Amino acid sequence: FTTPLATGRTSTAIFAEDAKINNMIDLDSPKVVNTDTLEAGEKKVYCRCWKSGTFPLCDAAHVEHNKACGDNVGPLIVDAAKAE
Amino acid sequence: FTTPLATGRTSTAIFAEDAKINNMIDLDSPKVVNTDTLEAGEKKVYCRCWKSGTFPLCDAAHVEHNKACGDNVGPLIVDAAKAE
Repeated sequence: FTTPLATGRTSTAIFAEDAKINNMIDLDSPKVVNTDTLEAGEKKVYCRCWKSGTFPLCDAAHVEHNKACGDNVGPLIVDAAKAE
Repeated sequence: FTTPLATGRTSTAIFAEDAKINNMIDLDSPKVVNTDTLEAGEKKVYCRCWKSGTFPLCDAAHVEHNKACGDNVGPLIVDAAKAE
């Protein structure tokens, strides 16, 4: 099924202006908000493709997602400055 | 246009197993990865809906997105522990 929904650039890219992003994480929650605290010097990689098996952390699931639909989403990397 | 793409639960929800998530942020980039450093005691709210005008930070664009397609995505809130 490759017809673009709202606006489509190529017939192969499934592209929808407002397609749902999350189809597996806490689907019963009205809004999935995660909070996390980093210790000084700590670094974590967070998922932004909503397909990670270790959500909210990244497990590289974006690679498969990007390949499947021509997307270009990647993780957020946050670190806490080292204590001086 | 309300026909579900790959799998659909309700006729009103546009739901695609592998629809693109990002249709506005750094579209020329092969993969959008952001890094950020927090100072001790600092807290930031990061976008995960790929619709924020202040990406990678959240500007509540997820509210409109969730309303438009029945999604439930929300931001990631990270803080760096206060220096002892």
